Amino acid sequence: KVELIRRLVDSGLRDIEVSSFVRPSWIPQLADAADVIARLPRGTDVRFWALVPNRRGQERALDSGVTHVATFLSASETHNKKNLNRTRRESLSGLEQVIGVARDEGVHVRAYISTVFGCPYEGAVNPAETLGLARALLDLGADELALGDTTGMGNPTMVTDVLRTLVNGGIPLDRIGLHMHDTRGTGLANVLAGYQFGVRTFDGSVAGVGGCPYAPGASGNAASDDLVHMFEAMGVDTGVDLNALAEAGVMLAGALGRELPGRYHRYHVGACDTVARTTA
Amino acid sequence: KVELIRRLVDSGLRDIEVSSFVRPSWIPQLADAADVIARLPRGTDVRFWALVPNRRGQERALDSGVTHVATFLSASETHNKKNLNRTRRESLSGLEQVIGVARDEGVHVRAYISTVFGCPYEGAVNPAETLGLARALLDLGADELALGDTTGMGNPTMVTDVLRTLVNGGIPLDRIGLHMHDTRGTGLANVLAGYQFGVRTFDGSVAGVGGCPYAPGASGNAASDDLVHMFEAMGVDTGVDLNALAEAGVMLAGALGRELPGRYHRYHVGACDTVARTTA
Repeated sequence: KVELIRRLVDSGLRDIEVSSFVRPSWIPQLADAADVIARLPRGTDVRFWALVPNRRGQERALDSGVTHVATFLSASETHNKKNLNRTRRESLSGLEQVIGVARDEGVHVRAYISTVFGCPYEGAVNPAETLGLARALLDLGADELALGDTTGMGNPTMVTDVLRTLVNGGIPLDRIGLHMHDTRGTGLANVLAGYQFGVRTFDGSVAGVGGCPYAPGASGNAASDDLVHMFEAMGVDTGVDLNALAEAGVMLAGALGRELPGRYHRYHVGACDTVARTTA
Repeated sequence: KVELIRRLVDSGLRDIEVSSFVRPSWIPQLADAADVIARLPRGTDVRFWALVPNRRGQERALDSGVTHVATFLSASETHNKKNLNRTRRESLSGLEQVIGVARDEGVHVRAYISTVFGCPYEGAVNPAETLGLARALLDLGADELALGDTTGMGNPTMVTDVLRTLVNGGIPLDRIGLHMHDTRGTGLANVLAGYQFGVRTFDGSVAGVGGCPYAPGASGNAASDDLVHMFEAMGVDTGVDLNALAEAGVMLAGALGRELPGRYHRYHVGACDTVARTTA
């Protein structure tokens, strides 16, 4: 994990979510969060983020020395209950404490809203639900928001509709990021729609690795290598060394011993190395 | 093959490329082209297409009773030589005969231009090269054009640039289709850019199966299941039964005994069956 993060830092990424302080009995693979954070590269300008589901996780995160925490709830009531075992209202009440403590400690807070573009239990989610939660989270003091397409049910038209609802409702566009899973292959198309609307913050996972234990059928986020390739090819400067990022994906696939869903990292060597930049 | 095609017909697809009359010694898997065509479902309004690389292939296609043929050359000189063993000028001369005979026989002709959005040997391809070939092919009598991103090197900005060059150069938009491989994960994003520009014809391959023996690193076309899902979710009527198409993908993956790159067909059962339609 530490070697992977080191490679991501070297690739030029400046925001890296490195672990999660969920209860170790829930997700044993993340029980080493504090150990990973203790061994992160020092002296960089990278913002290392840790996910915290609640106050207890936040305490462990603060003890580890993390200065950027991400927390979350769901736009859909059913997914919130399945994922967090509480109502959205109860989640907001808990996040009031999490965000309050973070502000007292000078820690940045990113708030994810999950299932914004569809819920595996409820189906379509009304953008007004997301707007209400977004306002509440900013009012509580969250520094930024990330809209999650947790099971990849979104589509480009819906992305535009949700963003319009939020911006018309007073949410500043520069505080909105998009977190688009690629379960149905629409990850990059949805990101493109967000970019066209004016969003400039997009989450990715290395080589598309990932999923969600509480969202049936979820697969990983849009692959960072594919995102960076698309934007660089479009002439959008990402500040990321695409080859270094692709090699991090190759390393991760090797460490896990399986093929990962991202595309670019598989083809970045040899004849397919070429980025055909837009000619305009 | 015949069972797969029958399922595609039943799904509602109305243009299906069913085989290719290339020399059997080159691609033995396609040596059964005439046999497949002889066993196609009758009495449908489906346009069954066969790929023909040259006059000899066209004769075999016409003997089989096919009424729609697709032929091809490359925008890049190097790829044309590697793929067809002749220059683009020589290809155009051959296609003059192919298209002339097709018109005499009342057969529709679709002309693919490959490597429009990047060449694995030459890198970027000037859109002016594509415009020149597009004009020549329409002048020869081709009924429609398909612009191929043969190794998935395109990006949404480039798609818009190429389309603008062609339309400004007098090519009617309604005679242009897009044929976007998904090698670097940009297939659906590129299709979205084409749709936003006004293109309404998009190629897909069942569950994303495919590749190209003469294009290193090529992978399949954008997956038909993912394309239909995206458009249906956007509220665009495709006339295709998404579940039937996804099941055809599942059947193909089973027949080939391997996972295929398309996404939707893997998740179309159970909780992920839901298409979260755009709420607008």
